[in-house]
Amino acid sequence: MTDVTSSSAWLDPVRVGIVGAGRIGTSHATLLAHRVPGARLVGVADPRVDAAQALAGSLGCRAHDSIDALLTDPEIEAVVITASSTAHAMLVTAAARAGKAVFCEKPMGMSLEEIDQGVAAAEQAGIPLQVGFNRRFALDFATGHGLVVDGSLGRPQLLRSLTRDPGLADPGSVPPWTIFTQTLIHDFDTVLWLNPGAEPVSVYATADALVAPDYKQQGLLDTAVVVITFDNGAIAVAEASFSAAYGYDVRGEVFGSGGMATMGDGARSSAVLSNASGRHADTARGDVELLRDSYVDQLAEFADAVRGRRTPSVTGADARRAFRVALAAIRSVETSGPVRVQEVDR
Amino acid sequence: MTDVTSSSAWLDPVRVGIVGAGRIGTSHATLLAHRVPGARLVGVADPRVDAAQALAGSLGCRAHDSIDALLTDPEIEAVVITASSTAHAMLVTAAARAGKAVFCEKPMGMSLEEIDQGVAAAEQAGIPLQVGFNRRFALDFATGHGLVVDGSLGRPQLLRSLTRDPGLADPGSVPPWTIFTQTLIHDFDTVLWLNPGAEPVSVYATADALVAPDYKQQGLLDTAVVVITFDNGAIAVAEASFSAAYGYDVRGEVFGSGGMATMGDGARSSAVLSNASGRHADTARGDVELLRDSYVDQLAEFADAVRGRRTPSVTGADARRAFRVALAAIRSVETSGPVRVQEVDR
Amino acid sequence: MTDVTSSSAWLDPVRVGIVGAGRIGTSHATLLAHRVPGARLVGVADPRVDAAQALAGSLGCRAHDSIDALLTDPEIEAVVITASSTAHAMLVTAAARAGKAVFCEKPMGMSLEEIDQGVAAAEQAGIPLQVGFNRRFALDFATGHGLVVDGSLGRPQLLRSLTRDPGLADPGSVPPWTIFTQTLIHDFDTVLWLNPGAEPVSVYATADALVAPDYKQQGLLDTAVVVITFDNGAIAVAEASFSAAYGYDVRGEVFGSGGMATMGDGARSSAVLSNASGRHADTARGDVELLRDSYVDQLAEFADAVRGRRTPSVTGADARRAFRVALAAIRSVETSGPVRVQEVDR
Amino acid sequence: MTDVTSSSAWLDPVRVGIVGAGRIGTSHATLLAHRVPGARLVGVADPRVDAAQALAGSLGCRAHDSIDALLTDPEIEAVVITASSTAHAMLVTAAARAGKAVFCEKPMGMSLEEIDQGVAAAEQAGIPLQVGFNRRFALDFATGHGLVVDGSLGRPQLLRSLTRDPGLADPGSVPPWTIFTQTLIHDFDTVLWLNPGAEPVSVYATADALVAPDYKQQGLLDTAVVVITFDNGAIAVAEASFSAAYGYDVRGEVFGSGGMATMGDGARSSAVLSNASGRHADTARGDVELLRDSYVDQLAEFADAVRGRRTPSVTGADARRAFRVALAAIRSVETSGPVRVQEVDR
Repeated sequence: MTDVTSSSAWLDPVRVGIVGAGRIGTSHATLLAHRVPGARLVGVADPRVDAAQALAGSLGCRAHDSIDALLTDPEIEAVVITASSTAHAMLVTAAARAGKAVFCEKPMGMSLEEIDQGVAAAEQAGIPLQVGFNRRFALDFATGHGLVVDGSLGRPQLLRSLTRDPGLADPGSVPPWTIFTQTLIHDFDTVLWLNPGAEPVSVYATADALVAPDYKQQGLLDTAVVVITFDNGAIAVAEASFSAAYGYDVRGEVFGSGGMATMGDGARSSAVLSNASGRHADTARGDVELLRDSYVDQLAEFADAVRGRRTPSVTGADARRAFRVALAAIRSVETSGPVRVQEVDR
Repeated sequence: MTDVTSSSAWLDPVRVGIVGAGRIGTSHATLLAHRVPGARLVGVADPRVDAAQALAGSLGCRAHDSIDALLTDPEIEAVVITASSTAHAMLVTAAARAGKAVFCEKPMGMSLEEIDQGVAAAEQAGIPLQVGFNRRFALDFATGHGLVVDGSLGRPQLLRSLTRDPGLADPGSVPPWTIFTQTLIHDFDTVLWLNPGAEPVSVYATADALVAPDYKQQGLLDTAVVVITFDNGAIAVAEASFSAAYGYDVRGEVFGSGGMATMGDGARSSAVLSNASGRHADTARGDVELLRDSYVDQLAEFADAVRGRRTPSVTGADARRAFRVALAAIRSVETSGPVRVQEVDR
Repeated sequence: MTDVTSSSAWLDPVRVGIVGAGRIGTSHATLLAHRVPGARLVGVADPRVDAAQALAGSLGCRAHDSIDALLTDPEIEAVVITASSTAHAMLVTAAARAGKAVFCEKPMGMSLEEIDQGVAAAEQAGIPLQVGFNRRFALDFATGHGLVVDGSLGRPQLLRSLTRDPGLADPGSVPPWTIFTQTLIHDFDTVLWLNPGAEPVSVYATADALVAPDYKQQGLLDTAVVVITFDNGAIAVAEASFSAAYGYDVRGEVFGSGGMATMGDGARSSAVLSNASGRHADTARGDVELLRDSYVDQLAEFADAVRGRRTPSVTGADARRAFRVALAAIRSVETSGPVRVQEVDR
Repeated sequence: MTDVTSSSAWLDPVRVGIVGAGRIGTSHATLLAHRVPGARLVGVADPRVDAAQALAGSLGCRAHDSIDALLTDPEIEAVVITASSTAHAMLVTAAARAGKAVFCEKPMGMSLEEIDQGVAAAEQAGIPLQVGFNRRFALDFATGHGLVVDGSLGRPQLLRSLTRDPGLADPGSVPPWTIFTQTLIHDFDTVLWLNPGAEPVSVYATADALVAPDYKQQGLLDTAVVVITFDNGAIAVAEASFSAAYGYDVRGEVFGSGGMATMGDGARSSAVLSNASGRHADTARGDVELLRDSYVDQLAEFADAVRGRRTPSVTGADARRAFRVALAAIRSVETSGPVRVQEVDR
């Protein structure tokens, strides 16, 4: 939990509007309502007005008629963007121009240009911009990062980050490169963050439709492995699947000249049942269940940043770096060979 | 986290006053400020007025001139009692009579009579009364309890609950039977709760001053083991120490005819460091660090109870049952033999 | 594994006879045959001659007509006693008088007098006498013991040792105090060994028939908790059950002024299965499965002792110390109160 | 442990000669002497005659003047080949032609042709040939394999196998492709074995000299990541490093449509120390310490195979399959791109 470095958060909660009333928008709104006194949701907007109204109704705040109406509402100080990915960058730009602080879900945009425009708009407006790489707030990942930064692990040589998601409810609705731009983007950020000061040089990716092979023709890839080499020699493996039978699985590993840190443990709690069929522990079924504290803490940090008590620790530049690796991974799949990361810069 | 079963908590946060600005009062106040939108601290009182002012100042609320002033403040709806244990029951009674909802830290009183009076006052006033057995809110303990209740473990036969506290900063200030009334009271509640429907029959306790032997003459006992037999045959061991070199340690175990549940894991997170001297994990150094979510969740549940969205799950009757075992344990140490629990009822 | 400190064990394997062809005798014989080149089973005797013949036949050695015949067989250098407990001490004495080295299963006798006679006979004969407290050879317990001896844990304050056995096949055949003399005897040895230099002062035991209540009238106790206080202030809890649904469970814990060591982990291996119902590991179903290496290593050490390459690390004096605590525990159950250990010395 | 399916192993131990008195030869010889009654080392040969004499002397057997002398010694029934890898295939062929049963360390040869010749020689001679992929005998890996075979994991989709070795004592002495032919060969066998019925299609490898960069010019690669795609769609990652600060590390993972199995845990034992700097466990420092039981069990199985009680579970065909992947990995590094496995067949 953040230290108490100023008078209480609840004295002047940040008035937040959410753009996007889907799954992640609903999750963020609920966590804000129940665990983040430093922020207060006052408005919801969504192109599907009924979705906005339902969420606003359940949490006792206002549904705006349109995104524009929300962005120009003077009561709103900060915007949490949980809309469709294709709209992220445009919304960041619009919100920044309207003078709102911005928290944007990953990916921050669907091209480097888009992301650059969003970052530029935020800088011009002088507003805080934070990106939703929540794993950095998970205590285990933060501890592992600390062990890298304080030198305990020596020079990083091998890294691993993986995401396995239990659900692929509707394969037909998943855009082609989702596994790279939406899922592995977390892992790309993780390995970049865990190898500070190093730049990715080359990316090799292989991916397939193993969970829902019938959708391969439509471009759906549901299983992927990506190898990233860095200019300090380190080699990272990022891996994802859209169908983990046992629940949500997020793990990381850094192996360096001084030792290894491992992070991630899918157990819901330390409770263990031993019975006639062995020893058992419940696994977390969803990302919010697995990483709840990290979601709460990133939103609390964002509120602090809006109030000027700190600057965001996850920036637009971080969003850009991770997306660049995603682009290289996509090109690697397209070309069936390793890709120099600088190639994607054009 | 509690489900969203009503409109948002922040719309009408419970206005709370805290009585007692010591370590636990400060911790509860801080958690309320940073993680419980459903409650809002509006007043602090403490016999040491400067302590009340310091805490109130750091959190931006009001310091009352006296406890009475806080209890009669019409703005305050609910009182969190974190004062000295000897004052708990009296404060519960006074707050109840003033019509405030009450959350009281353990122990709820220092005698069965005191506890009975507090419970009676709360009933007469018709206010919610919740007691601070926070372990019940810890996900692992709640999971273990669920395995008992749903029959997965069969009939309980052996139970264990332990508390080891890293710090005994000032042995001279610790009242004689503290290890039973303040520390093991948690473990007594735990084993009673994990063996539902059964009554404790006999208690054997042995205790010593191993951490600070110089204070034994003054009655300080810092290490204790208590064996409790129940009317369903189950045997429980509760164990405590005031000096765990490795941090705060809270664990539980239920062994039944169908299997075993174990709860408690002192690791701060799932991060593990492997290096030339082996494999390492950080341990939690304090109770709040180890059990933070349980503290937050019990306060959020209390706010829900004040708003009438539920009844408290930990009651005055629970406080009484645990204290009865503490009394039997004290008498066992005094007489160096097992004690029938009904003897302490007089 | 023992170091290679001499020329190879197989050059001159110790010629061993086993007295007792029951479950544990068969297990020891099989381990000798398949994992201990330093010993070679050449004879088996059992009052049930057909049992001796079956075991001898399966392992390709000789079945003796009688125990006397085996003990006087000049080919046999060493005797492994796995007979009924009531015969142990007498067999130790007889084997020693016949000049055979002796490995005796626990308990070494059913009274302190018997044990003393066996020890005296071994001393007079000048033969090595080793007792089957195999847990001392388990790597985790040995590591924990090392942490006590090297001072890492500081002064021991709280200890725990437990045994839970999955099977109580035939309750009617179990002699009354078996849980203390056969099962907890291991735990008594463990806590004595883990608290070196300290003497047990007082014992409080409570026991019941929770697994097979119908047999309580016949004196069967299947669940027990024993509290032992030592002259260095340490308090130990030993605990046993005859019916662990999840398999064989042996664990230990030492908590001292400098930290804690925990030992014992019922998992069969590090393999973990995660699937739709959570995370699972197999548990060991029997003592030999759980502690196989310790059984092999104690037999290999015995062979080394017979060849004069070392002295046994578990002695008749150890057997006596553990049995003394068992006697105090039994008396505690009989008197329903704590017992001074010296009382059992008469 | 293998079941007792016949009369005792020690009645007629297999008379074994070892060719190669280096580190692994010494280790195998020592394990045979102390834990495998079913085999008996009677001869040692090594081009360095003094090494053969030292090992033979320490274990009380004979040092042969030459490898030829050992191979033609009629007393010897079986040969354990632990010589330099470049000689393996030739020695297999020579031993087979001499009518000896053969256990050969990995790799069985340095080209597919060599391996094919050895396999052919063994077949022609009708002798058992077993290859030293000992991980298959480790209980955790065997359990994981069982979960694949019995369908618990569904169809394999993602696999992982890694080897991290603590020591790179003399980088100058390591032949160029060692990390693939000597180290990762284990991991290649593991992922092939854990994905039964599937054939590797494509291999992408990246490797570097991160531990001893000064030796990169001489071709030493000490860190490598290999991605293998299979014809059933599964993607495997094999990873190795020559410098794990924390000890020997061998792990495996199979993720399938039904769940995941993880194998490997570098802890020496279940003993855990908790103290002021957290929680600690010893890690295994070497391969034999980590995997001792697997080494013993594979040698015991080989003895059983020589006696005709079973056929070897790890064959020359297995050696060939793993080596084929190693060749593809080497070519991938040479060409900086993915390689079709069939290319290496010429």
